[in-house]
Amino acid sequence: MSIPDISFLEQVRNELGPQGSPEALNELIGELPPYDLSILLNNLTDPEQLLLLAALPPETTAETLEHFEPVEQYRFLDHLDPEITASILNLMPSDAIVELFTALHPRQTEQLFALLREPFQSQIHDQMSYPENSAGSLASVDYIAARRWWTAEQTLAHMRKVKATAELYNYIYVLDHRGELVGVLSLRQLILADPATRLEEIMVKKLITVPAKLDQEQAAQLLARYDLIALPVISDSGKMVGILTVDDIIDVLEEEATEDIHLLGGSGPVDTPYLKTRFVTFFRKRIVWLLLLFVAEAFTGNILRYYESLLTQVVALSFFIPLLIDTAGNAGTQTSTLVIRAMSVGEIRSSDFLKVIWREMRLGLTLALPMAGVTFLWAMMLGSPVNLSLTVSATIIVIITLSSTLGAIMPIVGKKLGFDPAVFSSPMITTLTDAVGLLIYFRFARLLMGL
Amino acid sequence: MSIPDISFLEQVRNELGPQGSPEALNELIGELPPYDLSILLNNLTDPEQLLLLAALPPETTAETLEHFEPVEQYRFLDHLDPEITASILNLMPSDAIVELFTALHPRQTEQLFALLREPFQSQIHDQMSYPENSAGSLASVDYIAARRWWTAEQTLAHMRKVKATAELYNYIYVLDHRGELVGVLSLRQLILADPATRLEEIMVKKLITVPAKLDQEQAAQLLARYDLIALPVISDSGKMVGILTVDDIIDVLEEEATEDIHLLGGSGPVDTPYLKTRFVTFFRKRIVWLLLLFVAEAFTGNILRYYESLLTQVVALSFFIPLLIDTAGNAGTQTSTLVIRAMSVGEIRSSDFLKVIWREMRLGLTLALPMAGVTFLWAMMLGSPVNLSLTVSATIIVIITLSSTLGAIMPIVGKKLGFDPAVFSSPMITTLTDAVGLLIYFRFARLLMGL
Repeated sequence: MSIPDISFLEQVRNELGPQGSPEALNELIGELPPYDLSILLNNLTDPEQLLLLAALPPETTAETLEHFEPVEQYRFLDHLDPEITASILNLMPSDAIVELFTALHPRQTEQLFALLREPFQSQIHDQMSYPENSAGSLASVDYIAARRWWTAEQTLAHMRKVKATAELYNYIYVLDHRGELVGVLSLRQLILADPATRLEEIMVKKLITVPAKLDQEQAAQLLARYDLIALPVISDSGKMVGILTVDDIIDVLEEEATEDIHLLGGSGPVDTPYLKTRFVTFFRKRIVWLLLLFVAEAFTGNILRYYESLLTQVVALSFFIPLLIDTAGNAGTQTSTLVIRAMSVGEIRSSDFLKVIWREMRLGLTLALPMAGVTFLWAMMLGSPVNLSLTVSATIIVIITLSSTLGAIMPIVGKKLGFDPAVFSSPMITTLTDAVGLLIYFRFARLLMGL
Repeated sequence: MSIPDISFLEQVRNELGPQGSPEALNELIGELPPYDLSILLNNLTDPEQLLLLAALPPETTAETLEHFEPVEQYRFLDHLDPEITASILNLMPSDAIVELFTALHPRQTEQLFALLREPFQSQIHDQMSYPENSAGSLASVDYIAARRWWTAEQTLAHMRKVKATAELYNYIYVLDHRGELVGVLSLRQLILADPATRLEEIMVKKLITVPAKLDQEQAAQLLARYDLIALPVISDSGKMVGILTVDDIIDVLEEEATEDIHLLGGSGPVDTPYLKTRFVTFFRKRIVWLLLLFVAEAFTGNILRYYESLLTQVVALSFFIPLLIDTAGNAGTQTSTLVIRAMSVGEIRSSDFLKVIWREMRLGLTLALPMAGVTFLWAMMLGSPVNLSLTVSATIIVIITLSSTLGAIMPIVGKKLGFDPAVFSSPMITTLTDAVGLLIYFRFARLLMGL
């Protein structure tokens, strides 16, 4: 469902009203998936939302809430009956709770925290001690843990006993008596095994694990690379913290790509959905960058003023300034974008840096030659004298090569200095290519036009 | 493992040599995950690669090959013993085979196709009839299908009989006698059910399915939105084509983000990893865009030539041209990037278009005012007369507002016209803001400076 149709909405509204019946409501929305329920909720009034949430099974509400921003989640949880709120909270996956608690005011967090049951309370407490955006804070504690000496039959019996929760994946994690992870086996292996087999006989012992402190982006790439559905997250002391699941990872990868795209577009990254982001947030993120780039470009004015007498003698020199500046910018942006993306998805390592720079320099020169030809022809067509046309096209050769090379160097230098390559590159490339480009242009003009 | 250490590599090499033993080799690499094996292979010579691949169990080789580009996959498959090649091919997931076959020369495809067993051969044949990048071509046929009248016990027995394959997910798909999908249940539900229960009694009947012809990007978003591990793909006639799994989806989302990023960076999208992409490919993708943008910017020369007399009178007017053009470009790129990304991840729908344009116009104006103030101060500091400083800052107000508005309009118009918004926006915004910006600048100069 994209947008619920009006008649369906009316029916739901009726069943939520004083004449409605819970059975009819359940008939209507009983099998809707959580995402569809979240769309439905967005089309209801505040009181109707609360009536609907209270009518849903708490498991479903818990899953539906995940499609809302923390502020909205809190509004729902705060307005529902505390008992209902408690059962919803205790059914939410631990990573969703950590995200919610991190976003709320400490007083609000405290109020909700009190509703959690043990041992969930201390699990959440532990998980919140990991830095934001680390694998530990993203991990979910809803996994099946078994002991190495259990049999397949015992394990299946344990699984039947454990409460059904939203997230359950394909693997069973095998712990030793200290809670350290010693092996893993798939649900399929468990089903196919002889009921009397001990887990330690069939489990896989070579494990791919994620350190709890690892940055979420690197953890995401680990999971993507090994094509796995879930990876166990391990604390410094070797204890199992939880599992990192592929659906969380999809969100992380989407967020990281969005962040890169926003930075490459020359604005601070915005992490809320476009239509839910406030005007003032966009303003703040964008004005900072516009000012930064303004400062980067302000030099060009000084350079032009310095060459005022040259410009007075040959006004036609100024005709080509926008084209030169834009073309240098385009070539630099092409390179930096390709290099930054390749770095983000792990296609370029530190050991490749020199190779990349050398390659982009050669590529820049190869691109510059035909572009210089086109520029020469165009300048002649515009009625410029030959020596001016030569000046412009010679400048094109140098600045395309230069900006292409800088486009590779800047992200790499940025990364080495500990910046996000996407933040560092754009203003540096603009400043350097604009300023150096103009200097070269006037130098060539002096040389080739005898000024 | 990121890069295998030298001594490990030496040991593997020894065991592959004439003195080596298969047992010792298995001891060394027996439990390495496929990705690590692919790294190891990259560090071996061609003959060593073939020896290693032949020594691995075919299931492992099949999974390892997925980490290589089609051309490399073919090289391995073509050089191995045909019997080994056949068993590897028949163990590869169907989507990987479709990707390989689509990339190869028809004669090579035919040669490999002949090695497939029935019914896999006809499954692959069917799947290749779906358009490239559609859900149907991405679907994997490695799923557990059961019949609605089977009991839980029969289903488990069937699962034990079915050959183990690389991809096995959490769900069992329930088909009727015509092969149409009628329900789904999780492995967990199956395990917990009474062995004599019929599947139709416990299966979930309201299904989220993906039409086989749906574009892979939209299919990926469906899976991401509903937080599922796999979704069934259904043909026009209601038959089950296969399942779309979350690991394929991660690749799709990464590819689509890369494509957007490359286009936004003003180059054609490159779909091979950076270091594996040929020089000439980069050259081709980039020169086309540099030329396109060159043409888009070439107008500026004509406009400046038209106002030659004005520029001759006040050379200082030209000092601000780079700054004006760059600032307009920056504001336009900020908006178009934010809007294009929001469209890509489905945050903006058609019904929001007018709202988005109106908002970006207001935001543009709000950003323009402080920027105009800064520009005025800077122009004064540069020693410009008041009326020139006013001209420049008045132009800033108009062009930031304009380019911000165009930054929202262009991706939307592009999409409406059926283009990729990221392709269409950049040249159109450049052309319009550069040309209109300069026209406005000279108009203001006439007006405010009495020229």
